[in-house]
Order: sequence, then C-alpha cells, then structure tokens
Amino acid sequence: MTATTAAVQSFDIPQTMKAWVLDDPGQLRLAEKPVPQPGHAEVLVRIDAIAFCAGDISIITKGPPALIEGGKPFNKNFTPGHEYMGTVVKLGAGVDEFAVGDRVVVEVHYGCGRCERCRAGMYTACLNYGMNYKGHDKGHRANGFTTDGGFCEYQVNHVSTLIHVPEGVGDEEATLIVTAGTAMYALDTLGGLIAGESVVVLGPGAIGLMVTAVAKALGADPVILTGTRDSRLALGKRMGADHVVNIRNEDPLEAVRRITGGKGVNYVVEASGDPNSLNVATDMLKRGGKVCLVGFPEEKASVDLAKLIRQHISVFGIRGEGRSATHRCAALVAQKRLEPKLIHTHTFPLEEVPTAFRYARDRIEDAIKVVVKMRK
Amino acid sequence: MTATTAAVQSFDIPQTMKAWVLDDPGQLRLAEKPVPQPGHAEVLVRIDAIAFCAGDISIITKGPPALIEGGKPFNKNFTPGHEYMGTVVKLGAGVDEFAVGDRVVVEVHYGCGRCERCRAGMYTACLNYGMNYKGHDKGHRANGFTTDGGFCEYQVNHVSTLIHVPEGVGDEEATLIVTAGTAMYALDTLGGLIAGESVVVLGPGAIGLMVTAVAKALGADPVILTGTRDSRLALGKRMGADHVVNIRNEDPLEAVRRITGGKGVNYVVEASGDPNSLNVATDMLKRGGKVCLVGFPEEKASVDLAKLIRQHISVFGIRGEGRSATHRCAALVAQKRLEPKLIHTHTFPLEEVPTAFRYARDRIEDAIKVVVKMRK
Amino acid sequence: MTATTAAVQSFDIPQTMKAWVLDDPGQLRLAEKPVPQPGHAEVLVRIDAIAFCAGDISIITKGPPALIEGGKPFNKNFTPGHEYMGTVVKLGAGVDEFAVGDRVVVEVHYGCGRCERCRAGMYTACLNYGMNYKGHDKGHRANGFTTDGGFCEYQVNHVSTLIHVPEGVGDEEATLIVTAGTAMYALDTLGGLIAGESVVVLGPGAIGLMVTAVAKALGADPVILTGTRDSRLALGKRMGADHVVNIRNEDPLEAVRRITGGKGVNYVVEASGDPNSLNVATDMLKRGGKVCLVGFPEEKASVDLAKLIRQHISVFGIRGEGRSATHRCAALVAQKRLEPKLIHTHTFPLEEVPTAFRYARDRIEDAIKVVVKMRK
Amino acid sequence: MTATTAAVQSFDIPQTMKAWVLDDPGQLRLAEKPVPQPGHAEVLVRIDAIAFCAGDISIITKGPPALIEGGKPFNKNFTPGHEYMGTVVKLGAGVDEFAVGDRVVVEVHYGCGRCERCRAGMYTACLNYGMNYKGHDKGHRANGFTTDGGFCEYQVNHVSTLIHVPEGVGDEEATLIVTAGTAMYALDTLGGLIAGESVVVLGPGAIGLMVTAVAKALGADPVILTGTRDSRLALGKRMGADHVVNIRNEDPLEAVRRITGGKGVNYVVEASGDPNSLNVATDMLKRGGKVCLVGFPEEKASVDLAKLIRQHISVFGIRGEGRSATHRCAALVAQKRLEPKLIHTHTFPLEEVPTAFRYARDRIEDAIKVVVKMRK
Repeated sequence: MTATTAAVQSFDIPQTMKAWVLDDPGQLRLAEKPVPQPGHAEVLVRIDAIAFCAGDISIITKGPPALIEGGKPFNKNFTPGHEYMGTVVKLGAGVDEFAVGDRVVVEVHYGCGRCERCRAGMYTACLNYGMNYKGHDKGHRANGFTTDGGFCEYQVNHVSTLIHVPEGVGDEEATLIVTAGTAMYALDTLGGLIAGESVVVLGPGAIGLMVTAVAKALGADPVILTGTRDSRLALGKRMGADHVVNIRNEDPLEAVRRITGGKGVNYVVEASGDPNSLNVATDMLKRGGKVCLVGFPEEKASVDLAKLIRQHISVFGIRGEGRSATHRCAALVAQKRLEPKLIHTHTFPLEEVPTAFRYARDRIEDAIKVVVKMRK
Repeated sequence: MTATTAAVQSFDIPQTMKAWVLDDPGQLRLAEKPVPQPGHAEVLVRIDAIAFCAGDISIITKGPPALIEGGKPFNKNFTPGHEYMGTVVKLGAGVDEFAVGDRVVVEVHYGCGRCERCRAGMYTACLNYGMNYKGHDKGHRANGFTTDGGFCEYQVNHVSTLIHVPEGVGDEEATLIVTAGTAMYALDTLGGLIAGESVVVLGPGAIGLMVTAVAKALGADPVILTGTRDSRLALGKRMGADHVVNIRNEDPLEAVRRITGGKGVNYVVEASGDPNSLNVATDMLKRGGKVCLVGFPEEKASVDLAKLIRQHISVFGIRGEGRSATHRCAALVAQKRLEPKLIHTHTFPLEEVPTAFRYARDRIEDAIKVVVKMRK
Repeated sequence: MTATTAAVQSFDIPQTMKAWVLDDPGQLRLAEKPVPQPGHAEVLVRIDAIAFCAGDISIITKGPPALIEGGKPFNKNFTPGHEYMGTVVKLGAGVDEFAVGDRVVVEVHYGCGRCERCRAGMYTACLNYGMNYKGHDKGHRANGFTTDGGFCEYQVNHVSTLIHVPEGVGDEEATLIVTAGTAMYALDTLGGLIAGESVVVLGPGAIGLMVTAVAKALGADPVILTGTRDSRLALGKRMGADHVVNIRNEDPLEAVRRITGGKGVNYVVEASGDPNSLNVATDMLKRGGKVCLVGFPEEKASVDLAKLIRQHISVFGIRGEGRSATHRCAALVAQKRLEPKLIHTHTFPLEEVPTAFRYARDRIEDAIKVVVKMRK
Repeated sequence: MTATTAAVQSFDIPQTMKAWVLDDPGQLRLAEKPVPQPGHAEVLVRIDAIAFCAGDISIITKGPPALIEGGKPFNKNFTPGHEYMGTVVKLGAGVDEFAVGDRVVVEVHYGCGRCERCRAGMYTACLNYGMNYKGHDKGHRANGFTTDGGFCEYQVNHVSTLIHVPEGVGDEEATLIVTAGTAMYALDTLGGLIAGESVVVLGPGAIGLMVTAVAKALGADPVILTGTRDSRLALGKRMGADHVVNIRNEDPLEAVRRITGGKGVNYVVEASGDPNSLNVATDMLKRGGKVCLVGFPEEKASVDLAKLIRQHISVFGIRGEGRSATHRCAALVAQKRLEPKLIHTHTFPLEEVPTAFRYARDRIEDAIKVVVKMRK
C-alpha cells in the first residue's frame, strides 16, 4: 500500500478548537481548547470522523481509567474518543512518512518505547500505561483513555500510530479500521494460522462482528457466531459467519457439536462479556485449543480452572490493537476483503455528540457503530 | 469442513493392479503388482488422479532419492508419483476418520512419529526419512520418493496423511491441493501473519504460481511475481499477483523498488531455482525480512552472507507440505478462495504416463500441471 | 547425551508378573498378570523404580480418568502409576535407538500420531486421549491414566517415550526426571526465554519445588516461591529459590512488590491448586505477563476476567510433559544442574505399595516424593 | 535484579571532553569535543571503560558504515566505540529508572521506535538504521556505528539501552556484557529452548567464546567449539565447551559425527567468518536444524542451497543484541553463571587508544578483549 500523497496542500489552522470535555462522569460539555502542536515525529491531525466504542461509553459513564483503576484525581478537562480518522494538516520535526493532506486513521496506543514490553513490540501492554498524565512523563499515549482523544477538531499523534486510509474508503468507514485492528489482533494472538481453522465468536457486538469478518477474510472455516438477537446474527452472516446460533433457541455447545461433527473448534474469541463464557468456550474447544478474551465482564466469573488444565487450554486477555494489526486491516479493506461499513448504522455532527452517545449507549434503532462526522 | 460420507459403499478390490515402475533412470515400464493391504491406521486408496511434479521428473530422470542421495542400491521395482487423490476402498484396523467411498487427497510425507522432529510436529523433516526402505523399519513414508507412489491403481496410506476432497472439486483439481499445501507451508514458515504484508515470488513455475495464489488468498498485499515468460506471468495475474515483472524487460530489484516506493518487501519466496536468487531476494527485502527457499538450484550459489547478517535476514529451506498445510489448503479450495485448477493444463490416461511425463518435462504446449486420470 | 550401551545383555523374562490393580476406588490389590509383549517400535521395560505423584493419589482414591471424566465403565483390572524408570529387557520390531540392558526413564504420554494435535507436536493434548481403552484403537497411551502403568514388574512402552538415564543417576532419582519434565514444560510454555526473567512459583508441592529448581537451572532471576509450610520453603531455597514467602506471615502480593521494587514479575507458575491463585497471579504479574496452571483446584474459581484483559495476561493450562521436556531435563540432570533427588523422601518395596500410597497421600513424615523400588 | 541506587550523588560535569575521532580511515586523533546534553528519556553517562570489538576494528580501518555501505560523505568528526559502560552523571527529563551515580552498561542499538521493525520489537533491525546522521532525524542510534560512540569521556544514551551493572562486577568485565548480549541473542534466535540441546560454535573469537559460555550457562549439551588455535580452544573449554576440535588436526564434520554418535547437532552458531562455514554447518546439523550467522565473511560464499532445502535448514543472519538479551545476560553475570572476564586480556588508558587498537587488531600477545579504562 503506498501513500496517496496529494499535491502539497496547506491548511489554515486556528488557535483554538471545539472539544467535548468530560467533567463529572456522565457530564459532557462542549468547550474551547487550544489546538495542540505536533512535536518531533508527530503530526497534527484534523479530525474528520470518530466512532463510538464500548470503551468510550464506559469512560463517559464512569470516568476515565485514571479515575477508575488507579484512584488518581479526575481530570476535569479530559476529551474522550479513540476511534478516529482525519487529515494531516501539519508535520512535526523529522516526519517524512506522511505529507500534509494525507488522510489517516489513528491507532489508539502509542507505547513509551522504553519499557520491557515496548522493547519487545508489545506496545498495547506498555508498562508505563497512562504515564504521561498529571505530571508523569514517560510518553505513553492511549488516545481518549489517558490522553486527550478525538471528540474535538484536532489532535496530535505520533507517526507510528498513523495508517494511510486506502483510496475509496469513506471517512465513516475509515474510523472502523481501528475496530478491525482489535479484531485482527485477537486472531493474531491465537497464532496467526487461521485459514481453514474453525473459530467460534461469542457475542455479536461491534467487536464480535468485526472478529467474524476478519476471521472469514483470513479464510477461517467454519466461522460460528453466537448471540441473542436475530438482527445482529443476520448481520453476522452478511459479514462472513458460516453459521449463526441464537442461544435463546439452541444451546450453543450443542450447536457447536452439531456443526463440527462433535469435534469442537480450535479457537474461540469471547466478545460477549458474559462471565460464564470462559467455561462455555472451554467446552467448545478441542483439547489444546485457545481462547482470546476481548469482552469485559462486569463481574467476576466462576471458572473451572481444572478443566483448563485437563484440556490444555490457553487463554489470552488482550487490550487494543497490537502487532500493527490496524495496518494489516487497512490493507484488507483496500483489497475489499473486509467491509467495516456494514456495522456503521448512524452518523451525527460534532455538535450532537451527546445524542450520538445516547444512541450508542442505548442501542437506539439497533445502533451498532455510531459515527460523529465533522464535515459533510 | 465435515466429511462427506456417502451411504456405505463397497468396492471390488482385485489381487493385482497396473503400476508404472522405474527400472534404470529414465526407464518407465507398466507392470503388474499386488494390491497392497492397509495395516493399522491405514486405508487402501483407489487412485483416481495424479499430477506430475518437478520432483517426479527429477526422480524419473535420475533415479529415486535413495539412489541419488544415499548411494543405496537402486530399487528396480519402484513406483514414482506423489501428488495424488482417490477413493477410500478399504479400511485398516482402528480407522473411523474415513469411510469407504470417501474421496481423499493424500499428503506426501508420513513421519516416523518417534524422532525428535516428528515429536515436535516437523514431520516433513523426519530424521528417519527414507528409513522404511530396503530392510529399515522406522515407518517413515514419502510417497513416490522413498516408498511406492501413485502412478498405479491402488496405494496404502496412513489416515494422518488423508484429507477429504471438498464437495464440487474435480479429481484433477484435487491432486493440486498437495501442490497448494507446499505453497502454504512456505508462507506459514515465513510467520503466518501474511495479510497486508508484501510478498515477492520468484519464478512462475507450478509452485511459484501456487504460492502467488495462496499469498493472495491470505490477503498479502502487494503480491509481486517475477519470471521470464509472459504467458506464465499473465497466468500469475489471474491467480492473484498484483504486479508481475518480466525480468527480461525490467531489472527485478528496480521493479520492486518502484512498486514499493523504495521500501522493499517483507517476504520473498524463491521458487525459480536460480542460484543467484538468494542475493536478489536479500536485496529486495526490508531489513529484518525473510526468504523461503523452495526451488532447487542445480548448482552451488555464490551468496553474500555478510549482507544476510547486516540486513538481519532469515532464510528457510523447507521440504514438503508440513504443519498440516494441505488440510488448510483444502479448506481454502472449499471456500473458492483458491482455484488450483488454473494451473492444470493437460490430462492423460494411466496408460499414457510416458507421454504425460514428456509433456511435463519438456513443457510441451506450455504445460504446467499435467494430470494422469485413471477413470473418465 | 549419548546412549550408554552396555555389552549386549540378556534377561530371563517370566510369563507372568506381580502387578497392583485397582478394583473399586481405594481398593488396591496385588495380582498376577501376563507380562506384555512389545510390538513394533516398542520395548519391554523391567520396572526398577516408580514414584507416587498427586495424579496417582487422585486415581487410586477416585478411580481412573475413564471413570471420572467420561463415565465409561470402570476397568477392574487397571494398574496405576506413571513416574517410572527401568531397564530395557526386550526390543520390539524396528528398534535400534535402545539396546537390551539400557536404563531408561519413561515419559507418560504417547500420542496417537494421527490427530491434529499430534501432527503439530502437541502429543500431551492428543485428541484421541484415552482412545486405546475398552475397544477403541487409536494407539494413544497415558501410562497409569488410560493404559496400564508402572506399579508392577514390567511394562511395554513406545521408543519415543524413553529417555536414557544419565550415568551416575540412581533409580529413585531417575523416576523424578518425569516430574522435572512437567516442570520444564510449564516453563517452556511461558516462552522459553527464562534466563534473567522473574518467576513466582505458587505452592511448594513436588511440582512447585521442581519448577523452582528448573527455573533456577535455566537462569531465572529472581525465583520466588510461596507456600504455607516453612520446611517446604526451606527445601525450596535449597532447590534454587532466591526468595521464599510464607503466606501465613506475609501477604504474597506485598512480598512480590517488596522483592521486585514494585514492578511485579514476568511469569507465575501456579502449582498450589488454590482456586484464588489465578487472581493472585494476575496481581503479581507485570502487564503482559503470563501464568501457567499446573495445580488442579478441587472447586471452581472466582476469576476477575476483566483484569486479565486490562492487564494483557495470558493463561496456559497444561497437562503433562510435552515438547520433549523430559529429554531436556535428563540432560540438565546429567550436567548436575538439577538434582531431583532433593525431593525424594521415602522408599518402599513393591509389596508395600499400599503403605507407600498412605505416606504419599497423608504426607506422613512430611513425605514429598515416595518411591517404590523393585530391587535393592 | 533491582537497581542499586546509591545515596544521591552529584558530579562536576565539564563543558568539554577528550574524545578520539576518526578522520580518514585509519587516522585516529585525540580531540576536544563538547560534552553532550541528555534530552527527554536520556541520561549522560560518564564512560568508565570500553572494549574493542571486531566491528570497531573494521570501522577504524575502513571508515564508518555510512561511508562503507551507503556511500554517504565521510563524517570527519566521528567517535567510534560501542562496548562501553560507565556512571550516570546527569538525568534528562522524565527519567526515573536510573539515578545519578548508578553504574550502567550500554546497549549499542536504540531503534527509531516508529518503523515496522521497531514496532515489532526488532530494534536491531530498525528500518531507519543510521537515519539520525547528516541531517536525517529519525532518532535511531547505533553507538559508534552511526552516532558518536564511546572512545571519549561522556556520552548521551536513551534509558532503554541502559542496564544496571550487577554488584561486584568490575568495569572491564561490565563492558563485555554487551558482547554477551550478542551471543545470547544468537541463541535466542535459534528458538530459546537451548537446555539439553546440542550446539556447535564455529570460531573461537570473542563472540564465539561468548556464545560457548552463554550456551553452557543455559544448559546446552553438548557444546562443541571448533577453531584453529589451541590456546583459544583451551579457553573455550574453561568457558564451558564440552568438546573442542582443532580443525587443523581433525575434520570438524568427522568430529561432530564422532561426538554425537552420528546424529549431528540441533544448532550451529557460525562465528568464524569463513565463507565455507554455512556448508559445514549444514552438514553438521540434523535435518530441520538451525544456523545463526554472526561472523562476517570478507568475501562471497559458495553455498549449496539445494541442501538447505532438502535438509530443511533455517539460517538466521543477525545483527547486534536484540530482544533485550543484554539485560538477561547481566542477570546471568549477577548470578555468576557467566564470567565474561575470562576473555578480557589487556587494559589501556584512554590516551593509549591507538596502542589498544593495535593490540586488538593484530592480536598482540594473543589479545582477545582489549579494554580501555578511563580511571583507576
């Protein structure tokens, strides 16, 4: 994939911008903030579109992770949002990978580059996660989690987190390449040799649907998707599921046995957040199988650990879109092997972020991916 | 993929069969041999079709590997041929994975199961390679290399080397799933995460074309194929190459630089057998890139090892179709993501094996894959 | 390590032998059984010593796995025991890796060699586990679990499960090389690059102590062992632990923070069977860390799965001594880097298996490894 | 390993320092340079000792890599040297991993953190290698290769390249931890599971000897070292070789066959620079074996690529000390499992760098590692 460099453009960049900020949990407010300046190896991105993700809903409802996990004082001026794309409008020092005018999608995580994990390429498991916040200075960024995100007009990002938007892909769809990156990273984590292997996806939310689509794009066979809502399962079929199972109508274990001739599957991606799903996954798997956990359960799960041992099961908790998975997803989108836009349901302008939030949170009109688009 | 078990069939199995045997190198003779009997965990396959591979041509021309490599006495009664498929006509003891009447394609290598490599799953690098021949008894099989192969009517094979032929796939095409298995194993060896990665394939022979097709089926991008014959390169485009380079017209290094914007590629699969190709591959690769060697050069190569070190290049010599790659290819064929039949050019009946051999060896009428088909 | 082939010996092999058999759970009885005959690629081992493992205690107490897991009819004539060594007294067909007179230690698992897992080298996760029992015929063996084990005078084993006992290693110690194999496989599963990495071992039972010793032999640093009994922890120090933590006196999380300067560790091996230990392990690990589960909890665990995701934790349930770990352990023992005999506490003759069982089960006199030795 | 933080010290830092610079190839000159200032995430290291490596000799003799490889204009003010250690005397912004007064050894390579390879953790294969030189600005550093090195009094380094010197390790020995890092990375590249595996090391130079020592420290068995000088081979035995082979007296292939009972070995590390050694290595390996290349041959090699394919051989060219191997080596040194000082033969003061260089280049008095030590 080569960069689509337009003839050099230039953009008028204002001093200040509109930005949604989160005061107390649940309190979004449209504010005026300074437009940030790109440093070494960074660019300024004019944000053109941003999608809501379950993580955003959690943060807006409960406060940013700094508050939730670490007990640190709440940042009253925080701008959430992490699934965004836009246009490069200014280059920081030393940047030649991108040109002004390039359309880019932005990965969420930028590792500190100095901890043991970043040195090993595991930048979404950076040991200095959040350590650029409130006086710390290790350089880690997680857009919209621990540093300001994308529900605003401009944002600064490091070049290593930018991916060129393939030609012919619209702004709304481009935001979903980040979602696809997480889906692909889940499959990467299961070992990479996915073609011809059997995969169950638990839960047809945005991530579950995207895992379904990426698994099929990589040649997995069969891809089985389970859930409770027929409309979502029907969409899952369009996105690549070979079989869908409505668990209100059929026991999912029985269904997997039926479909696989009693053998079980090689991989399960758990995207439902149901605390019992690790046990279900273990029972669906062949001995020696693997589970990737991407759906956050709200409560502790009761897990049969002895069965994990007896059945030689590996379980991978992952966060984010590591191993440059987003770059590889962009290539699949460019090849039309993946169509993230199938899960895009609603679009709102920047001014209507609270409405968009409500649609996303309450799944109004069966909303899946709600996108905020800054310009027509 | 589930087994397609027909209603239980039964087959009349004769005592003897027609089999081509190799006397002195180059001397093929149609003989009568006893039909072998399946042992524990084996089945008897009625061979329905078999393709010629470059390895067969080498063996028929120069004698079987036992003679070439190890200096062991030539086996006057040897039947060559390893890319075959057929119908299960009899089950040995303890077999329930297959039923009489199942159509199967047969992997070439069956490991001894007891050496260090087989214990680690590397059955195509079995340390007891050839050790079931001439009195040795370690159980290793390489169909048509060290044990009798498929230019005959029946053969016995271990269940672990059998793959169900997907529905709707013809006999001729099914033989080529073995070729595809080697192609996929080459890509597996390069790390498995192929989607969105850049790949050069050197040499548009049968394996090179198949690597091109599998790489594209897995989402590699771009896939660049180099060669000297426009007709082969045109076929390469149909099979999935994004770019083809006729090296008579353009320097391949320049072409790769042009296509990749000067970056080079992540992976090269060398399938041309040109002794200089490892140097060419090294120059095409990004630092840290990988090469898989599948084309046998006839002579020693002059290699710049210092550049391999400076550029942090890994080189993988592989043999065969390891890691169950053939199984995964069958799944890609079943999904219509891979069409091996594009390289099938000629068909002959069993009686005409010498003519088929001549077509394959001399590339008569631009022959690529020449298949011998036992029944209409 | 080269085979120590003695001048060819010959042994008088009787028709029948003494063998302990398990009737109803808890009912051990000394019986007379035929001496088995080695088949192709098998040898007959005269058992010289066998150790009790926690798995044996569970089987003798509750019945063999066939009864526990699969509900199949109880085998009234079953001989338990799997950690054994002995002397090769007869070769089956095709065996040249071992000679009559060789001293060997025997790996527990022999895979079917035909399933997807065995083909990938994962023979302890064989999909045909137990499938040579009661009429099934897939060839899988798990000594003393699903096929007759070693509390008897002779047993037949496949050559791929035999390892030469290093010179100078006594019979009792040699039995513990199997225990060490499981310990090493646990560490292999965590990635192999153990030197200089921090490891916590939870639980100073036989396996936990052996993991401690192998981790240190491979250069892990620091190795931290937690438990409740000071005598076991003191032994852990002798076996290589850099730090031991009696969790009755200090909170283990606090201890790990203290020892690692607040950083946490890279790896945890859970060998205590405590259902809460996966949560404890997650809290001890650095983000991106890994846990291997080898201790069977008796009941379901309450697990914080969301933390596994947020902390990017991988969890590996393993069974047995895969990846030829036992072979590599034998090499460490030969080099005196590992001294399994430190955990050997008691020895009994074959006639006193019930007493030995009681010592092992009830940890009489703080028994760790109780060995039954057949000859002086 | 915990940091050994002394009570906070402070150091007088001059404005200028003595530094050796390379004018034309072969022309070393002692100059006065400004002491550099540490930026964000960097520290200023007062260099206490530095060792000569073969790479330095090549650079001093032929000019820095920018000149050799890329044809870029020669940097007249370049300071070579990369195997150094020292004392942290000043912290840049955001550094809390190290304190003023800490003794540190410095890894050679600091990746750009933004290219595909760095994002995957392969920082020694950074695609922006050398791209901070002559106006480029990607941030990559290779001390003494493409940025100023350590034959001077002070140098600035990024915290991610610093490792605490274990207590009790002297300055001279600490410089050799970098050498050990390259040795360990070679073994890491071969797969990590080294314990109990057979390894041949070709060439008893500094790297070959260190590979020998690290392989033995990790439990490899047997470790076989080949070379032409008995004194070096004798040292190799002291460092851990189980067998040494003087190839003037015995054919190395015959020797490996003799030692391994005809089986061959699993791994070869080629550290001799002999162009024929890849063929030798291939013949020494078991089928499916692996070679790591670390010795630079001066000329092209004639290589039997067909044998690499038939024997399923993997070849890894590596550069530097990736995967944080230097950190893990420091831990082995701290545990006294590795004694780099065995290869330290000579020490000179900073003023005598040209003499030290001559000793290293001409192996005067059988010099192996020649160290320049800045203070008594």
